Amino acid sequence: MAKPVCVVVGVGPGNGAAFARKFAAAGLQTALLARNQVYLDELCSSVEGSRPYRCDVRDPNQIIDAFTRIKEDMGPVQALIYNAGAGQFSNVEETSVEAFENAWRVNALGCLVASQQVIPDMVQAGRGNIVVIGATASLKGSAGFAPFASAKASQRSLAQSMARHLGPKKIHVSYVILDGIVDLARTRQAMPDKPDEFFMQPDDIAQAVFYLTEQPGSAWTFELDLRPFAEKW
Amino acid sequence: MAKPVCVVVGVGPGNGAAFARKFAAAGLQTALLARNQVYLDELCSSVEGSRPYRCDVRDPNQIIDAFTRIKEDMGPVQALIYNAGAGQFSNVEETSVEAFENAWRVNALGCLVASQQVIPDMVQAGRGNIVVIGATASLKGSAGFAPFASAKASQRSLAQSMARHLGPKKIHVSYVILDGIVDLARTRQAMPDKPDEFFMQPDDIAQAVFYLTEQPGSAWTFELDLRPFAEKW
Amino acid sequence: MAKPVCVVVGVGPGNGAAFARKFAAAGLQTALLARNQVYLDELCSSVEGSRPYRCDVRDPNQIIDAFTRIKEDMGPVQALIYNAGAGQFSNVEETSVEAFENAWRVNALGCLVASQQVIPDMVQAGRGNIVVIGATASLKGSAGFAPFASAKASQRSLAQSMARHLGPKKIHVSYVILDGIVDLARTRQAMPDKPDEFFMQPDDIAQAVFYLTEQPGSAWTFELDLRPFAEKW
Amino acid sequence: MAKPVCVVVGVGPGNGAAFARKFAAAGLQTALLARNQVYLDELCSSVEGSRPYRCDVRDPNQIIDAFTRIKEDMGPVQALIYNAGAGQFSNVEETSVEAFENAWRVNALGCLVASQQVIPDMVQAGRGNIVVIGATASLKGSAGFAPFASAKASQRSLAQSMARHLGPKKIHVSYVILDGIVDLARTRQAMPDKPDEFFMQPDDIAQAVFYLTEQPGSAWTFELDLRPFAEKW
Repeated sequence: MAKPVCVVVGVGPGNGAAFARKFAAAGLQTALLARNQVYLDELCSSVEGSRPYRCDVRDPNQIIDAFTRIKEDMGPVQALIYNAGAGQFSNVEETSVEAFENAWRVNALGCLVASQQVIPDMVQAGRGNIVVIGATASLKGSAGFAPFASAKASQRSLAQSMARHLGPKKIHVSYVILDGIVDLARTRQAMPDKPDEFFMQPDDIAQAVFYLTEQPGSAWTFELDLRPFAEKW
Repeated sequence: MAKPVCVVVGVGPGNGAAFARKFAAAGLQTALLARNQVYLDELCSSVEGSRPYRCDVRDPNQIIDAFTRIKEDMGPVQALIYNAGAGQFSNVEETSVEAFENAWRVNALGCLVASQQVIPDMVQAGRGNIVVIGATASLKGSAGFAPFASAKASQRSLAQSMARHLGPKKIHVSYVILDGIVDLARTRQAMPDKPDEFFMQPDDIAQAVFYLTEQPGSAWTFELDLRPFAEKW
Repeated sequence: MAKPVCVVVGVGPGNGAAFARKFAAAGLQTALLARNQVYLDELCSSVEGSRPYRCDVRDPNQIIDAFTRIKEDMGPVQALIYNAGAGQFSNVEETSVEAFENAWRVNALGCLVASQQVIPDMVQAGRGNIVVIGATASLKGSAGFAPFASAKASQRSLAQSMARHLGPKKIHVSYVILDGIVDLARTRQAMPDKPDEFFMQPDDIAQAVFYLTEQPGSAWTFELDLRPFAEKW
Repeated sequence: MAKPVCVVVGVGPGNGAAFARKFAAAGLQTALLARNQVYLDELCSSVEGSRPYRCDVRDPNQIIDAFTRIKEDMGPVQALIYNAGAGQFSNVEETSVEAFENAWRVNALGCLVASQQVIPDMVQAGRGNIVVIGATASLKGSAGFAPFASAKASQRSLAQSMARHLGPKKIHVSYVILDGIVDLARTRQAMPDKPDEFFMQPDDIAQAVFYLTEQPGSAWTFELDLRPFAEKW
């Protein structure tokens, strides 16, 4: 029998890659989406049973095309991890229409379109998981985060609406609030003085995401906040 | 001396028209924006000191153009009431990319662009009011409200970000949560059995919006919820 | 005809006194409750139509007794402003059972008991206002605010439950979130370097509280946040 | 080496018993607290390595006494599950001072006192878990839940304050929002027509609680909501 399929949309070198490794280690085939083909190929060579799908999630047609190929290549999707999350950090005076729209396309519209590609098969199977990766900004519109926060709030509302609609169809939609800085080459460089314990470990986040997909139907979580133990919040 | 200028974006026959009448009665000139020129002309003929500006807020260029003309015709804007709020009521499976995008353009992107047209003059004046009209859906992503709720959540987050950034510059941004059905010909027809007290009166909502613009600087409200006394919530 | 009666529970020298002055100026008789008789007498001598009622709100019997006397002296109550709000600022390790209980008695239990004294007459009259004065801590349990925050959260939940139950009976219950430092001799002394605009003015807060009691029934607010324009939040 | 110690405060026949079984199965000794000695003895006879401690959590002295004996009998506590959660369902007009106080004592004061008994040893050990079991009422003050909701809101705020204070000391405090009806003889009898899938399974809830205590320090959850897949929310 074919292994179940997990799609990770937005596989950067931190969380996305960790999600791919975690679900692969748990015995799933993984379809990995990102914009950079070279990076994707490299990542796939290190994750067993994974396949690369180049995709710019700002364009619904590219998403539709990628999921069509995934289904042909690997079969119906059982778990969708929506991890695409770029967005500009700027206040209302500094924000261009383009930056505002891009943040919303990546975080909200892309999430809708990707979800719509997998929902019919999940409804038919009577099972499935959609995990959307959010941030503190999903809950709070800070002064310097106009595009990112409003895009994340839109995404969270969409995920909540999906969870309520799809729960009775046995599709578990959940939302992860990352409240901390992820340990990446980029963040370490930007904050060289912070101790190790300041950073969130991608593998620990991946473990939490995987846990959500394993919850039994009588006790499903919608929203899971995650932060490092020493975080001020 | 010229009367101060209030712009109402999205003047339907209910709240928008009531906002126009209220601010006009308080001695302001009002610039009224809607898509329908016939309706706009009719409304303006009944509101003293008002001018019509035909505008589809889904198109940033139309907003920019309208505000350019408003400034030429009437002077810098002191109060912006962002009341455009259309959005489809549908669940994730029924929602098209177009409907999802339209809801976000009307509620969130339009609010950004309209606000950006008035902020520079308000900053220079060291005063100003931006009131954004939200809904219960701004706070809650219900199953059958995917496009509307996610657009309203995006709008609310943007308003909060603007409030935090602009407060110290003495521009008061506030957000109104309408939690009830507004008394309109359309809603009465759809719910013929409901008693009068079930409905929110546009003039009462307008009074609350006006109150927000009159708050002294030591005690500003960001979020104001409004509902009829008998509402279940 | 007798003037309507407003009771202010917890009339310190800042907000409470301002509430008394505002409602008195609006033509109501005011019954003022505090623990200190000397202070109460002094305040009453400066507020027309006011009467002092010595009361420690931690003791339900004292509340019941005070409201019995108020009704005998002045008639049924039309507006109750619950402003008692003491509470210790300490973390969980520093908090005694007594301090934790005192905070809850002042903020939550006292609010229940005071409300219960006026509800029957308000139900019979088919009108009435109960305004409860909260704080940012009502919404957020910060590390160093264990007793105060948990008492304020309890109070807010009670007010919300009352609002939902009493709304259909035409009694308007509302909750004010004060998000800033009130301008008092005590706070000025503690923060001598802060500019005037850092502080919230009691008269401005009183104006907002009075506004809540004047809202028409088709558009009632439950929760009103107030903060100075320059506040970081 | 001695097995680590887990205390379950409030072990009714549903969740509490499931927590005891789960932590016992994971290799911990369990100390079980309830008011009914007969029930406690029976439960302990079925859970390996467990001991009964009769305790009415409304009385801080009984809590202090029980934890003193637990430490003598079993050693320092590594995990505290605070599951005591009784509270009356009544509106503000029907609520007695006694019922309001009892709900708060069981949910909030008892949680403070029990936590204070284990915090010093946890701080010294540089590790520990406190999981508090909440409910939807922790977030929402419904009309008919005045005592229960305000007590749960108080409890949640306290847990949040503890989480913020104790996180940097490597003590993980988390809060579980149960949003559904637990499968018990009592609830089945009260709702005989509901299908199996309507109910939350105690063992599934216990699994989630245990998961919280196993999270790595770089990705801790504060608040975990749990509901059956078909729940309307």
